[in-house]
Amino acid sequence: MTELRTLKVALLGCGNVGAQVARILIDDAGTLAPRTGARLELAGIAVRNLDAEREVDLPRDLFTTDGETLVKEADLVIELMGGIEPARSLILSAIQNGASVVTGNKALLAADGPALYEEADKAGVELSYEAAVAGAIPILRPIRDSLSGDRITRVLGIVNGTTNFILDQMDSTGAQFADALAEAQRLGYAEADPTADVEGHDAAAKAAILASLSFHTRFDLENVYCEGITGVSAADIAAAKEAGFVIKLLAIAEKIGNGDGSEGVSVRVHPTLLPREHPLAAVRGAFNAVFVEAENAGELMFYGQGAGGTPTASAVLGDLVSAARRIVLGGPGRIESTTGHVPALPIDAATTSYYIGLDVADQPGVLAKIAQLFAEHGVSIEIMRQTIHRDADSNVESAELRIVTHRASEAALAATVEAVKGLDVINSVTSVLRVEGA
Amino acid sequence: MTELRTLKVALLGCGNVGAQVARILIDDAGTLAPRTGARLELAGIAVRNLDAEREVDLPRDLFTTDGETLVKEADLVIELMGGIEPARSLILSAIQNGASVVTGNKALLAADGPALYEEADKAGVELSYEAAVAGAIPILRPIRDSLSGDRITRVLGIVNGTTNFILDQMDSTGAQFADALAEAQRLGYAEADPTADVEGHDAAAKAAILASLSFHTRFDLENVYCEGITGVSAADIAAAKEAGFVIKLLAIAEKIGNGDGSEGVSVRVHPTLLPREHPLAAVRGAFNAVFVEAENAGELMFYGQGAGGTPTASAVLGDLVSAARRIVLGGPGRIESTTGHVPALPIDAATTSYYIGLDVADQPGVLAKIAQLFAEHGVSIEIMRQTIHRDADSNVESAELRIVTHRASEAALAATVEAVKGLDVINSVTSVLRVEGA
Repeated sequence: MTELRTLKVALLGCGNVGAQVARILIDDAGTLAPRTGARLELAGIAVRNLDAEREVDLPRDLFTTDGETLVKEADLVIELMGGIEPARSLILSAIQNGASVVTGNKALLAADGPALYEEADKAGVELSYEAAVAGAIPILRPIRDSLSGDRITRVLGIVNGTTNFILDQMDSTGAQFADALAEAQRLGYAEADPTADVEGHDAAAKAAILASLSFHTRFDLENVYCEGITGVSAADIAAAKEAGFVIKLLAIAEKIGNGDGSEGVSVRVHPTLLPREHPLAAVRGAFNAVFVEAENAGELMFYGQGAGGTPTASAVLGDLVSAARRIVLGGPGRIESTTGHVPALPIDAATTSYYIGLDVADQPGVLAKIAQLFAEHGVSIEIMRQTIHRDADSNVESAELRIVTHRASEAALAATVEAVKGLDVINSVTSVLRVEGA
Repeated sequence: MTELRTLKVALLGCGNVGAQVARILIDDAGTLAPRTGARLELAGIAVRNLDAEREVDLPRDLFTTDGETLVKEADLVIELMGGIEPARSLILSAIQNGASVVTGNKALLAADGPALYEEADKAGVELSYEAAVAGAIPILRPIRDSLSGDRITRVLGIVNGTTNFILDQMDSTGAQFADALAEAQRLGYAEADPTADVEGHDAAAKAAILASLSFHTRFDLENVYCEGITGVSAADIAAAKEAGFVIKLLAIAEKIGNGDGSEGVSVRVHPTLLPREHPLAAVRGAFNAVFVEAENAGELMFYGQGAGGTPTASAVLGDLVSAARRIVLGGPGRIESTTGHVPALPIDAATTSYYIGLDVADQPGVLAKIAQLFAEHGVSIEIMRQTIHRDADSNVESAELRIVTHRASEAALAATVEAVKGLDVINSVTSVLRVEGA
């Protein structure tokens, strides 16, 4: 057997994912070499603080604070520092030096991906980032390669484990948002400052990446409409449940006809009702899943762990071995396909069904008035259900109205809801939520 | 913009998948070209009978009966004829001629894959076969590339839509096997001769391919234990349901320690109980799904349509565009990773939990006798449930005993069941089924 060549790997960052990547590169070196066709040698790990506590016990002499020098000696660079700088500069430096790069940095990709892809194309190296979306789940490669001969029409993703855990807790225990969040924090699923997760920012960055690959067009964070889950109440969840739905925070990218023969893509993140029979409804706890609809393939779903050091490390290593194989075999890196040129659409252009909860006066003719208003705004009602409550003490009756509409545009719905609020028979609009997959 | 080069595509076979592939190549030429970096020109379609009815209206002048000549002019060859010959000879001819090959021929791959992969490696061309397993679902590429840095420990697949439809019908309607099969035939999910599906042969070929890729070792059909669903009764399904299980025909490939520090792979197809909460249990109708367990990634599931002309054509085209991109970029085809060298194990080496149904005499001490026998054979019982029936006419009592064991070897279980049959208190062993995912 001939001696295998050695490829030097530089690791930037040693947080919970980075530490696991280092561990696997060291422990599994013997397994990885024959699969790759080369020995993958961990040449060094760049960190900010040499003395920080690590999750994994790693040789001290691997660590350095000089990322710039480390990157210059490497055939392959893994960037897991997060944030924009110095990650961006180090990646550019690696690419210009002829190294292929693997990153899990969704914030950087969503903010500055196009410039990085272009540099990698020019240099003929690979820039892979499977770990940036849905952790361990192979989703970017299937979209880019396996579906390259198909036309994706829609992607629905549960791509943030923290919010899925919180919503699942609320659904299964009846807890309020604040209590479910506290539980998620206690179990380590949510950070002390949960903003990036619960406000949907993390999911929005992933939505931009999914949309870009699915529609062969570069979308960035500015193209993504984003609404988090802080406004979802226990009552919303209970009502959804009673109606046969579950509430999930979805990252959605879908192609929409503009009515004039042209097409656009709506990219958005918001709490969404899903029928309990929908495959995504069964995604529990902190798990992730991405549901893809394509013209020829039909419905596909990819399910797995969306976070965690070890699962995410698996995605990083898949990219690393694939890039290393390409170096061994020769030939340039893969082409980034961005030839679709479809424009990003604002949220107003999206059409979905809606679930609307109303607190109304219990008097004759209310339903007719509301139905009339929906009709005037061109929003068709699929289901309308009224429940009467009587307060035992005051003997006052109040009525709760739940409406599910047919597909309507965001704009038509917003106008309808505004008009409904103006009716004197309406006490309050208790919820407005989108429905998918029905 | 520079003029794109043209790559000639030869299509062998024009059945329901082939016809859809031809349609998409013609109709979507404009979309596929920029994604590929080359125009994909359908140069011809080789068929046995020029005058056969086709599902799609295609230009007559594309058709030829001379596959050998067609293959010689092609840059890319798609083989969808099925069967061993002439598919095998034409693929070899294409490879030797420097063409990359895309095939969906699971029977050929399971029978003769190793020789074909070797020829493709030698010629430096790609041989891709995503369509051979689970139709539209991207599963082979994720296993080969995305999980290339991980260690797969187990694969559980619902890879035959016909049997999943039949079992799902039996589960949801209480139908007997024969009636559910007839319904599947009426709806076109099962062939007039359903043997290859219901006896598990189709799933076995797919199990061999999944095992080979998952464990970096070549397995063929002879390594696969195969048991179909013809012996599954409505009573089995009902009992499973009552106990919280669903019965699925699974293709299973799993790594097993031999106890002496060495490892092997058990590759098998058989009807299997799954807890209703398991992600695979929710796979209804003719859908397919593959559940993968890997050391680092944890649990992953890939779900979608496993058959049908258009969905399967999507997988063929994904392979085609990927192979064409590689030709455009230059560089050899990918390496087939077969460096694991783990041996195939017989079914006796598999360990699972078991569900056993017994018709027993209703007399004191029966449970103790049976429990004692299990203990003597080293098979640990997890659940034992006895139900007493009284015949209203004869007033005779009979007892039904249902046992779920902890994990035990196939060999230990077989010995236990044999011994149980010899007990005088046993009227009959009504079912022995494996349990996964509990």
